Amino acid sequence: MKIDKELISDWFKLLQENICRQLEEEDGRGHFREDIWERPGGGGGLTRILKDGNVIEKGGVNYSAVYGELSEKMSQSIHMAASEFFAAGVSIVIHPRNPFVPIIHMNVRYFETLDDNKSVWWFGGGIDLTPHYINEEEARMFHSALKQVCDQHDPNFYMEFKKWADDYFFIQHRNETRGIGGVFFDHLNDNRNKTKEELFEFVKDVGNTFAPVYRKFMKANKTHKYGDKEKQWQYLRRGRYVEFNLVYDRGTKFGLETNGRTESILMSLPSQAAWEYDFTPIKNSKEELTLSLLKKGINWI
Amino acid sequence: MKIDKELISDWFKLLQENICRQLEEEDGRGHFREDIWERPGGGGGLTRILKDGNVIEKGGVNYSAVYGELSEKMSQSIHMAASEFFAAGVSIVIHPRNPFVPIIHMNVRYFETLDDNKSVWWFGGGIDLTPHYINEEEARMFHSALKQVCDQHDPNFYMEFKKWADDYFFIQHRNETRGIGGVFFDHLNDNRNKTKEELFEFVKDVGNTFAPVYRKFMKANKTHKYGDKEKQWQYLRRGRYVEFNLVYDRGTKFGLETNGRTESILMSLPSQAAWEYDFTPIKNSKEELTLSLLKKGINWI
Repeated sequence: MKIDKELISDWFKLLQENICRQLEEEDGRGHFREDIWERPGGGGGLTRILKDGNVIEKGGVNYSAVYGELSEKMSQSIHMAASEFFAAGVSIVIHPRNPFVPIIHMNVRYFETLDDNKSVWWFGGGIDLTPHYINEEEARMFHSALKQVCDQHDPNFYMEFKKWADDYFFIQHRNETRGIGGVFFDHLNDNRNKTKEELFEFVKDVGNTFAPVYRKFMKANKTHKYGDKEKQWQYLRRGRYVEFNLVYDRGTKFGLETNGRTESILMSLPSQAAWEYDFTPIKNSKEELTLSLLKKGINWI
Repeated sequence: MKIDKELISDWFKLLQENICRQLEEEDGRGHFREDIWERPGGGGGLTRILKDGNVIEKGGVNYSAVYGELSEKMSQSIHMAASEFFAAGVSIVIHPRNPFVPIIHMNVRYFETLDDNKSVWWFGGGIDLTPHYINEEEARMFHSALKQVCDQHDPNFYMEFKKWADDYFFIQHRNETRGIGGVFFDHLNDNRNKTKEELFEFVKDVGNTFAPVYRKFMKANKTHKYGDKEKQWQYLRRGRYVEFNLVYDRGTKFGLETNGRTESILMSLPSQAAWEYDFTPIKNSKEELTLSLLKKGINWI
């Protein structure tokens, strides 16, 4: 079987479809609206947004497959000279209503250049979790699930990609990680001693991990009691999420700089967020506990 | 009289004091809390924040005067090689409670390098207004006041600095200006055919324009009726303000990248902001009118 861009992007499209169905099922009320869009330079996407669900306050599940000439900005960003590119992927950010359900992000993507003489390709992606309140048992479950997926493909993947996530999902100016991390990987290609087929199988397994894992967190926490204090804390944590996405996130910056579809890129921003000057949680509160765990290098398992 | 860095920073400090007093007077309820801070590399500042006032929902009036070795990052950012620098300024962002009172921003700043053989200095600054609902009469008043200040110093300043503000306060990925602009200027030094004293007088006049102009807008609109619809629109406009400040604003980026005091830098962010996927205002609504006026190059006078 030839693992070509059509096969990969078709699979991404099915993944989007499958995840949306599962999220709707677990939410029990919300439905994804769909926007098909075209990219002026080539290709396009399907953006799916769920708003005001029972569990999901705002969630986006985006698919795109774009191609065309590589602009100078894009070349710089990926550190390579090439004339034609193809890029496909699925990106997800879910902001739940209940502060005890975590925010989650997932991305799987494939990239290739289309120059005749030397074609270059790679996979990238990852899943990371941003609980407003860190539940250490759930953090363990989350990382165990990711480790299990990684271990099926390579004994070094989890350690390497977990560290990559810690380093990537880091808010430098706050000296905080965005959440409890997860796995992050990029530029996976045949220099990894794996075939394209093997790497695609890994990426598929990562993609397929998303829905069952997040459904568990939705189900377990959607009826957790909360009041104004917890909701305000959630807004503040979402403020940090906004800071990360607008200041650091490479996908967001790349998208905005290369004239991507703004509404699809910024679907990651929450419906409401807050900032309080110099907010400090009460000593020994659950907010303070969470802050104390937003560090790199924690072994959650 | 020698216009040296002590004289300039002392004046900035008095300006901060004076503006805070006037804002408190007009607000009628809120008081500025003060945080004195020191910068590890040299100097420090006084951050003043007013929260939950009668008119002001969240406002920051920051003074800082910092000095020390110029890091590589800072050198790159100001496009010059120098070893020691001094920078002082006042920065203000006010987010009002009532959606019919505009957001306002002002900054005045002075920069110099302290190398023995060739010292370089300049002034920068500006004022710009971001109404949630654009009132064309108030826009005219605002720009007229700025033009009057500029005209007293140079017949070309207003045209030049108004265009600079249009270009600077622009949200590229939304194809929208942040608000109705104002004036923006940077690198004003003796290549302008003006003495340092004359330029300082201009900067002082800009600084002194802030309080009387904004008090007018506070007074005129603080009792304007509004409901949930207007408040939600205000949150969405604040979302755009967040996007501008985190994605484009040079001062914010420079501060975060050079390890500045995060809480002082991000005092510009509102207490609450919102994002709605693909929000489109109702045809012929006042929200649509405002959007249609968020363009570069409008002659408000």
